[in-house]
Amino acid sequence: MYSVCVRDHIMIAHSFRGEAFGPAQRLHGATYVVDVEFSRPELDADGLVVDIGLASRTLRALLADLDYRNLDEEPAFQGRNTTTEFLARVIFDRMAAQVSAGALGAGARAIAALRVQLSESHVAWAAYASELPQRSRP
Amino acid sequence: MYSVCVRDHIMIAHSFRGEAFGPAQRLHGATYVVDVEFSRPELDADGLVVDIGLASRTLRALLADLDYRNLDEEPAFQGRNTTTEFLARVIFDRMAAQVSAGALGAGARAIAALRVQLSESHVAWAAYASELPQRSRP
Amino acid sequence: MYSVCVRDHIMIAHSFRGEAFGPAQRLHGATYVVDVEFSRPELDADGLVVDIGLASRTLRALLADLDYRNLDEEPAFQGRNTTTEFLARVIFDRMAAQVSAGALGAGARAIAALRVQLSESHVAWAAYASELPQRSRP
Amino acid sequence: MYSVCVRDHIMIAHSFRGEAFGPAQRLHGATYVVDVEFSRPELDADGLVVDIGLASRTLRALLADLDYRNLDEEPAFQGRNTTTEFLARVIFDRMAAQVSAGALGAGARAIAALRVQLSESHVAWAAYASELPQRSRP
Amino acid sequence: MYSVCVRDHIMIAHSFRGEAFGPAQRLHGATYVVDVEFSRPELDADGLVVDIGLASRTLRALLADLDYRNLDEEPAFQGRNTTTEFLARVIFDRMAAQVSAGALGAGARAIAALRVQLSESHVAWAAYASELPQRSRP
Amino acid sequence: MYSVCVRDHIMIAHSFRGEAFGPAQRLHGATYVVDVEFSRPELDADGLVVDIGLASRTLRALLADLDYRNLDEEPAFQGRNTTTEFLARVIFDRMAAQVSAGALGAGARAIAALRVQLSESHVAWAAYASELPQRSRP
Repeated sequence: MYSVCVRDHIMIAHSFRGEAFGPAQRLHGATYVVDVEFSRPELDADGLVVDIGLASRTLRALLADLDYRNLDEEPAFQGRNTTTEFLARVIFDRMAAQVSAGALGAGARAIAALRVQLSESHVAWAAYASELPQRSRP
Repeated sequence: MYSVCVRDHIMIAHSFRGEAFGPAQRLHGATYVVDVEFSRPELDADGLVVDIGLASRTLRALLADLDYRNLDEEPAFQGRNTTTEFLARVIFDRMAAQVSAGALGAGARAIAALRVQLSESHVAWAAYASELPQRSRP
Repeated sequence: MYSVCVRDHIMIAHSFRGEAFGPAQRLHGATYVVDVEFSRPELDADGLVVDIGLASRTLRALLADLDYRNLDEEPAFQGRNTTTEFLARVIFDRMAAQVSAGALGAGARAIAALRVQLSESHVAWAAYASELPQRSRP
Repeated sequence: MYSVCVRDHIMIAHSFRGEAFGPAQRLHGATYVVDVEFSRPELDADGLVVDIGLASRTLRALLADLDYRNLDEEPAFQGRNTTTEFLARVIFDRMAAQVSAGALGAGARAIAALRVQLSESHVAWAAYASELPQRSRP
Repeated sequence: MYSVCVRDHIMIAHSFRGEAFGPAQRLHGATYVVDVEFSRPELDADGLVVDIGLASRTLRALLADLDYRNLDEEPAFQGRNTTTEFLARVIFDRMAAQVSAGALGAGARAIAALRVQLSESHVAWAAYASELPQRSRP
Repeated sequence: MYSVCVRDHIMIAHSFRGEAFGPAQRLHGATYVVDVEFSRPELDADGLVVDIGLASRTLRALLADLDYRNLDEEPAFQGRNTTTEFLARVIFDRMAAQVSAGALGAGARAIAALRVQLSESHVAWAAYASELPQRSRP
């Protein structure tokens, strides 16, 4: 399996509900360094997993909806704890939709799996990884 | 699959037996930067793979039994080469036992896999990864 | 000159006032990976710049007053933009006071300079560095 | 599964053909930080996945054929875009051949999988990973 | 002294002349991860050393003249070895000119020193640092 | 000022004497990632601070006298705590002697300063930096 990974970051505020979170129940924030890894079994005709420039721009556009925000006020996340692992899944789902919609190029529909990792500090990260549904591949 | 990873480190002395080890047959030492990754297919009710604070404290307690020691003198390792890959397995087994015993919370028994990586320098690391037995999951 | 540096981190929320800040005028947040470097011209009798364990615990205690907070609501920062460089200075001043008060050991009063760096992402950091006043050194 | 990873690097020139590459169609270059990860289900009698020293020297020898070269002029790559993901596969294949030929020691034929990652910058990397054929294992 | 540092990168081809360079006399290439550090004794009215967004965009524009190029063919570098330390100085001079010209804002003319570091691999970097001339500061 | 830095590492055992060291009074060990930075005001005729290849080989040779050893048994260190900051000075002095002896090339005698940093973990490092005596420079 071939993989390509691109990196960007977001800076958000949020708070958590639940005793398990201790002081993180207060409004605080995080820088998430976001790595998105695209995988597929064969390269395309150009020798690529995905156009890195296009992947980076797509990631930036997708992250712009989260960046510099208080996630407690985002309608999409009402009633949810926006933990690092939860946000990894959110970004996974949004990038998977972009792949499926052809935003990374028609050839990129051959991407078979994604993995999204959010590093929240030098000592902790979370990730969500899954294969992509392949229903529409001819 | 969701994952969460926490990082800590230990500083140990040891020596190796076997010609393959060359100068590492002499008593020397290492800093191991230890990454423990917990994975499970679904998040718990709080939106977590595992309570990061609890995971970090459990890792610290577990590493305290190895930290600042000469592993050549540890009864548990007699007759064994305490290579980086061997130690990754030791820490894996001890953390798996903690998960199984409920030390990371009752919900953490849903953790399906662990991966333990020990970075011994800026140019080498070793790891042990495996699924966890799921016998007691209702 | 000898130096020793210890690392920890904080996760805070804040917002900025001023058109220069663009989207960062919204409430957002950051993880700051904090490096505090202690320097002195000669080592102490133990061969140390500073007791690393004591330095790490002092840094943790000092950061606990900032960690998991919305800095917009901290009385100490009213009317100020809590930029990365501003916070580097805040932590510098607080650590300098600890050094001066003997919290890092009597011998640590020989520390001649501090440098505090806050890394806010994989692509940006800020720092404040200065010599310490040496008035009380016999 | 146990893994051991060693790191080295190469510095090469090349250019790409195809509109997707934009300015990278010009002759340019890259430093690739190369991580090769060896995996196997059980350790050998010495407690090793692979002799790290031998693995590092084998990787260096293998990379010497690529290092400090203009890949556009290498006969082996004529008509191909030497993308990061393509080169990860090239290095994978060459290391797999070394494992198969016994260059990493007779015991290293038990290596079950390889993963080769090339980091091209602080914000992008590519990899190729696969199991190794096990035909000759008694 | 306060400092702020921003990071970007370039990917270039070049060759060196002189026996000291060994195999690096062949046409090869490099990724340079570029860190530019801006320093000044006092913050501006916004609490900034420099507008990080503006500094990042200025650095990107400046690097675009070097990125994805064969430096052997650049008229500006004829007869020179474009070593890492030489290029650190080139980028220093170009950024210093931008600061002086007001491209980083009128207030940024208070920047007193720059440091430019180019990391060429995980095991080597070069830098050029100097104070800036302060002739025009009222 | 121009600088060039090269990186290598050592893996040693040692113990400390003094109550301040707590559990580190036991025999333990460390990986030290060693960065040696060479600085000079002007580049040589080749456009270099120092020949990186020669600097790396000199560093490796110098570190070989420390690598894979129990520093408690080294005659040179009897009666001393081989703290990270102490070892930074040891490596500084040995490299300074190499520079002075011409081991890095006759031109490298123009090197005006050295800085040696030893990273002992992902959360702590120590360094020693000083100008070099310039007595023999014509």
